[in-house]
Amino acid sequence: MSVDTIIQALNAVRQQKPLVVNITNYVVMNNSANALLAIGASPIMAHSKQEMAEMLSFAGALVINIGTLDSVWIPRMLFAVEQANRHGKPVILDPVGCGASTLRTETSRQIARLAEKLIIRGNASEIIALAGEQAQTKGVDALDSSEAALGAARFLVAEYAANVMISGATDYIVSQNRTVALTNGDKMMPHVTGMGCTLTALTGAFAAVGDDTGLAAAAILGVAGEIAAENASGPGSLQVALLDTLYQIDEAQIVARLQLEIH
Amino acid sequence: MSVDTIIQALNAVRQQKPLVVNITNYVVMNNSANALLAIGASPIMAHSKQEMAEMLSFAGALVINIGTLDSVWIPRMLFAVEQANRHGKPVILDPVGCGASTLRTETSRQIARLAEKLIIRGNASEIIALAGEQAQTKGVDALDSSEAALGAARFLVAEYAANVMISGATDYIVSQNRTVALTNGDKMMPHVTGMGCTLTALTGAFAAVGDDTGLAAAAILGVAGEIAAENASGPGSLQVALLDTLYQIDEAQIVARLQLEIH
Amino acid sequence: MSVDTIIQALNAVRQQKPLVVNITNYVVMNNSANALLAIGASPIMAHSKQEMAEMLSFAGALVINIGTLDSVWIPRMLFAVEQANRHGKPVILDPVGCGASTLRTETSRQIARLAEKLIIRGNASEIIALAGEQAQTKGVDALDSSEAALGAARFLVAEYAANVMISGATDYIVSQNRTVALTNGDKMMPHVTGMGCTLTALTGAFAAVGDDTGLAAAAILGVAGEIAAENASGPGSLQVALLDTLYQIDEAQIVARLQLEIH
Repeated sequence: MSVDTIIQALNAVRQQKPLVVNITNYVVMNNSANALLAIGASPIMAHSKQEMAEMLSFAGALVINIGTLDSVWIPRMLFAVEQANRHGKPVILDPVGCGASTLRTETSRQIARLAEKLIIRGNASEIIALAGEQAQTKGVDALDSSEAALGAARFLVAEYAANVMISGATDYIVSQNRTVALTNGDKMMPHVTGMGCTLTALTGAFAAVGDDTGLAAAAILGVAGEIAAENASGPGSLQVALLDTLYQIDEAQIVARLQLEIH
Repeated sequence: MSVDTIIQALNAVRQQKPLVVNITNYVVMNNSANALLAIGASPIMAHSKQEMAEMLSFAGALVINIGTLDSVWIPRMLFAVEQANRHGKPVILDPVGCGASTLRTETSRQIARLAEKLIIRGNASEIIALAGEQAQTKGVDALDSSEAALGAARFLVAEYAANVMISGATDYIVSQNRTVALTNGDKMMPHVTGMGCTLTALTGAFAAVGDDTGLAAAAILGVAGEIAAENASGPGSLQVALLDTLYQIDEAQIVARLQLEIH
Repeated sequence: MSVDTIIQALNAVRQQKPLVVNITNYVVMNNSANALLAIGASPIMAHSKQEMAEMLSFAGALVINIGTLDSVWIPRMLFAVEQANRHGKPVILDPVGCGASTLRTETSRQIARLAEKLIIRGNASEIIALAGEQAQTKGVDALDSSEAALGAARFLVAEYAANVMISGATDYIVSQNRTVALTNGDKMMPHVTGMGCTLTALTGAFAAVGDDTGLAAAAILGVAGEIAAENASGPGSLQVALLDTLYQIDEAQIVARLQLEIH
């Protein structure tokens, strides 16, 4: 895995403009659509069962984000995953708030069990909660650190035959044979709502062009966030600058800044 | 149709502050409300049947945008159109993704058949899909060009007694006796989600003060987008600058920049 | 009540990072979450009955905003208020559009009757409509002025054992023994959608750390809005600058600018 692979994935997204179907939460729908447009993909936000089979027949990937889930939307999410399976499309699951309620934990697991080509993207506490007690070997204080979720991520990789991303100061991209650590990004990013959801949405675009690990999305968002933060005076302007940067980001910026370690 | 009519319409919106009821998609609700506020109108986002009759008794126009439609919201949209009809209010339909699913195509046609005072605003592929096979005389590549949808737009004008707007590099405002072409705007605008939806929402404000064609809205958004793009370094800052520009835009800017041709 | 109390409340929010559960409208979900993050609180947007009991067991406050209410969400709002009551948590009610439809007026009153620890935040016409005819002693023209709603606010304080905030050019913070007037803010703020909703959300964060009046939230948002407006060229950049300012605002800025009068 070199920086070349990441650049190639970016070029592929910009050339192919893959359609990414998003069943995502109300809070981040606008940001997610804008981030996908800025990087060059084609977003569609849709949730009706009556159109999901059609849409997943020609879409490149399905993003499922449970941030504002309820009993009306959960069956739609499951139905969409079945349609993605039927058409061999990757599913990217963002288990927002997993662990904060039984509903979120159970729904996340149900989706993870169902999806055949699965990438999971969460923060440390969500990944640990999704993995369940088996993985909770550290105290609560450790939950802020993405390292603390590495064991849980490895459990999920095995349990669901998935690739797993842990977001944090260091992002970990965990797959069966390899763990990649990325240390780009900026400490102001968690002060903007939906930055993780943005990464999940972008992961859909890159999965549609062949990156089933989330690495290209995490690398590019990390570098873009770093550049955007240099031009921002707070979380409001960071959100704006991030979209500008995703739109403009080029090979030279990625090569110059990427901080990637393979473990 | 001169630039004076457009200026008068802008002044009327700013003086009358018309109430525009929006049943729109989750992705663009915030942008649509902000664009309506910036131009001087009063937006309300509402979708409950239990209040729609009351609201349309005192509102100036109804905007229906099907971007995130489902079986719960479709009956609400139809009920709202009935209430608009009952009170003689214009309906502006944005058939988002028409053609991308049978559900969207059928729902758009159902709304178009029902509305008595109708303006339709879509991009070329949506307008062509809404018109059906009769209009699809060009290949898929042509769909990006708004010219390709002129025949479909004329079909819709006749079929639904509607005025029709086709958005694109050139915007076409098609009515029974006349077609107007507008070439303002900027090529970065399609990289911001919901720019078309913003035009649809603004069309509601201008319809409420008497412009039943959408021309004033398209002209003002085109000029504002052009000015905003000069102050933007990407789609994030374009979205922000557009709201600032809609708030500030004045007669002199419109006169100096408007590129309008009557066919 | 001195400026010290306000500073202490701000420090408490930043240190304790209280979890604020929001059942709010689709239009402002993103802004509300971002404003809460910017000031240092932890927002969660959730509406499912299946997780509300759990969430309110560990949350600091519940914000209920009826801006896009319907028959599906109203029972969820009432259920959430019951859970807040059960755990002794404050409820902040934003009766958006109260008076614009019977549904909104009746739902607002139902929530107000149910909530045991209640803060109400609305503009003058919403507060007057919520209070009902008893309070409507002035003409329609007066509704734009927050003074016109002082009688209504006092009625609501007595009727619901609530604290009441009236937003406007002057904000009034009305409680049983005292009325505080705040004259910070900027005249451009009403041209951004959801500024009142942002105040309601922030009131949740401050209620979670002990301010049951809304004063700290109103004071800080007023000062932040004033600073942001100095750096903004329209409502788009005002919205962005406001988040930046909430993130950065410090004691010196608040002390230098706060315009507060106790009546």
